[in-house]
Amino acid sequence: MKYGLIGSKGRLGGEVINVFSENGHNLVLEVDANHWQKNNDPEILIDCSLPEAFPGTIKLVDEIKVPLVIAVTGLTNENLNQLSELSDKIPVVQSFNFSTGIQILLQLTKIAKEKLEGWDIEISETHHRFKKDKPSGTAKMIEQIFKDGKVNTTSLRLGNVPGDHTVSFGGLGEVISISHRALSRRTFAEGILRSAEFILNKNNGLYSFTDVVFSD
Amino acid sequence: MKYGLIGSKGRLGGEVINVFSENGHNLVLEVDANHWQKNNDPEILIDCSLPEAFPGTIKLVDEIKVPLVIAVTGLTNENLNQLSELSDKIPVVQSFNFSTGIQILLQLTKIAKEKLEGWDIEISETHHRFKKDKPSGTAKMIEQIFKDGKVNTTSLRLGNVPGDHTVSFGGLGEVISISHRALSRRTFAEGILRSAEFILNKNNGLYSFTDVVFSD
Amino acid sequence: MKYGLIGSKGRLGGEVINVFSENGHNLVLEVDANHWQKNNDPEILIDCSLPEAFPGTIKLVDEIKVPLVIAVTGLTNENLNQLSELSDKIPVVQSFNFSTGIQILLQLTKIAKEKLEGWDIEISETHHRFKKDKPSGTAKMIEQIFKDGKVNTTSLRLGNVPGDHTVSFGGLGEVISISHRALSRRTFAEGILRSAEFILNKNNGLYSFTDVVFSD
Amino acid sequence: MKYGLIGSKGRLGGEVINVFSENGHNLVLEVDANHWQKNNDPEILIDCSLPEAFPGTIKLVDEIKVPLVIAVTGLTNENLNQLSELSDKIPVVQSFNFSTGIQILLQLTKIAKEKLEGWDIEISETHHRFKKDKPSGTAKMIEQIFKDGKVNTTSLRLGNVPGDHTVSFGGLGEVISISHRALSRRTFAEGILRSAEFILNKNNGLYSFTDVVFSD
Repeated sequence: MKYGLIGSKGRLGGEVINVFSENGHNLVLEVDANHWQKNNDPEILIDCSLPEAFPGTIKLVDEIKVPLVIAVTGLTNENLNQLSELSDKIPVVQSFNFSTGIQILLQLTKIAKEKLEGWDIEISETHHRFKKDKPSGTAKMIEQIFKDGKVNTTSLRLGNVPGDHTVSFGGLGEVISISHRALSRRTFAEGILRSAEFILNKNNGLYSFTDVVFSD
Repeated sequence: MKYGLIGSKGRLGGEVINVFSENGHNLVLEVDANHWQKNNDPEILIDCSLPEAFPGTIKLVDEIKVPLVIAVTGLTNENLNQLSELSDKIPVVQSFNFSTGIQILLQLTKIAKEKLEGWDIEISETHHRFKKDKPSGTAKMIEQIFKDGKVNTTSLRLGNVPGDHTVSFGGLGEVISISHRALSRRTFAEGILRSAEFILNKNNGLYSFTDVVFSD
Repeated sequence: MKYGLIGSKGRLGGEVINVFSENGHNLVLEVDANHWQKNNDPEILIDCSLPEAFPGTIKLVDEIKVPLVIAVTGLTNENLNQLSELSDKIPVVQSFNFSTGIQILLQLTKIAKEKLEGWDIEISETHHRFKKDKPSGTAKMIEQIFKDGKVNTTSLRLGNVPGDHTVSFGGLGEVISISHRALSRRTFAEGILRSAEFILNKNNGLYSFTDVVFSD
Repeated sequence: MKYGLIGSKGRLGGEVINVFSENGHNLVLEVDANHWQKNNDPEILIDCSLPEAFPGTIKLVDEIKVPLVIAVTGLTNENLNQLSELSDKIPVVQSFNFSTGIQILLQLTKIAKEKLEGWDIEISETHHRFKKDKPSGTAKMIEQIFKDGKVNTTSLRLGNVPGDHTVSFGGLGEVISISHRALSRRTFAEGILRSAEFILNKNNGLYSFTDVVFSD
């Protein structure tokens, strides 16, 4: 496929370029701060940039009307509403975390929650020191599972850690934990590729990465 | 209830006596190596002893025909077959681990296994230095989930650790772990009490602690 | 020895009573909120109570002039200054954590700090849901090691966890962690006993549990 | 510097090429199974290959007489003796692990060992599924610290984990663990570069990576 990439100079952008290239896809439009290079019309847009670039992404997608996979973390509720409106016109996949393992962690957490009523809940995330948002978008996704109760979230910033997330349930005689550890950013790039392949021929609408993983 | 306790001098036996007493139950028969004290006829038998005592337990239950909750670890397949036969005549709850959390861990592990085909599996358990069997009975229960595939189990013995179990799934870009940590032996005694209350009026048959937890 | 115990009805107080009794020591004075029972003059005072009881402890020690081992967490800097003044008249052992293992953790942390300049530092502690202070007194002891730099501390509250502490150092290619896990409150009671034996014939002064462990 | 690389087609070899190139060094001799390409005489040799290639390495170094940094895991005691003999003629750095963090872990482990006599010792290592030797060379380095006592080592193989090592000390009331986690193979390549810079002008002799780190 011919794809455009917003945030092409970032860390995740670089991984996307590698993974898409290995799978025979062509980067035809590169966008970054002070950078714009277009060789051809893209069939799909990938956004791995920062929230600052969000208005530009919305405008661009509205113009060229191609499917969007958006992996920006730190989006506000207002941003998410704008994506929802946009998805009336084009198919959109939005997630704060594109790893398959995180999808499993979310599912296991939901099941454990049902069985462990009255237990304490702690979410803990660790990321590299360069991460700008706190807590991570993924931690916020986990918090959503417990939105009807009390939950505490802690954030650690350590060196170059790609991303760890743990949900712990504490009872009076035992503790259960569900943990996920990303080994490299490549994992996220692979999830973005999977989402791009998923959405290319889908109807308009707002899809999550959960839809991508569990529709297989 | 009036209960008999085989293995009354052991560590777990002591916890059972505390928890049952706090809940108003009466210890009417105490059995241990070189120890036999009977004050009344028990309505139910609890066995927290060692595999060496197993023939005596079978004989005793067969004589007095009351329900049995058996928490002995290190039982052989032959022992389990004998329990199965015995359960034609009386109701029996058998488990290698009487913690509620372990039941959740087993269920989550089954679900993760379905979604993570081709990932590496590692089971790891840590217990106190006094534990005689290796790997733990609980680790064997987890291994059963993967009996159609390849799984590696490691055992650590550290000080006075009540019992940790972790199942890890390793993919090429990420690792997911499900962990359980017992905080004290009291947890197991509470599960034994729950099983005793469950089985008191049940039909003959061999029940697992999974039956006890998930029939609620 | 004949000892007095302030906070005799608390969780840690109960462990102290067990451990001291097993070692042949006699509880001659019991103090708790709305409770005062004296059978004899104590040779030493142990305080396992809450900061609210602190003024009473100071007053009592000043009257009877016997050595004090104080294991109260959540003391303020002002409280510590008062202890320092008191120690001109009697020997005092004060610590926020009476486990030998924590002393080792502190020492290892100091050494690692020297060698890992420029690495990120994260302190994380987990305790039972009943713990009133946050972060734990032990976490504050660890923070002191990094007082000339930047350090982040996170606190988790889970079920009945006796007390976990981890210090992590994050570099761009690797992470090092030093962890301590208390298995039961008994550990702390044993450290209090060790301190009581240490201080019985010492000169006036303010001692730490580090002094107790490393003077052996 | 002009360097030769044995094992240039392997995973670690690839990282070495990247890190050395970023630092302005020239690869002038490439050696791998069925591969030999020489553009110039190397001033130093790096060996990241497998034990099978060891006889060839010894022969080559003996011919061209340049310093050697050898990062091969799975070497036998006999191999190490041969390196020792070779080091009469040229300077050699040999280690099973070239990360700075592992050097810190080894040092902390030695200190903890002194203070925790009678505690149980467990070493645990986790690596990617492609690792051929078990336990890891690093685990063997840790075992050496406890060679006068009893120690148990467990090995886990999970996905693409670069390398985790944990040493745990278990007492009757507490557990202390020292853990290291490599975030990418790049760490090892950086340690190899540091060793190459260290050894270029050293006297003949067999050096460890500990010498490299602690002589700074």
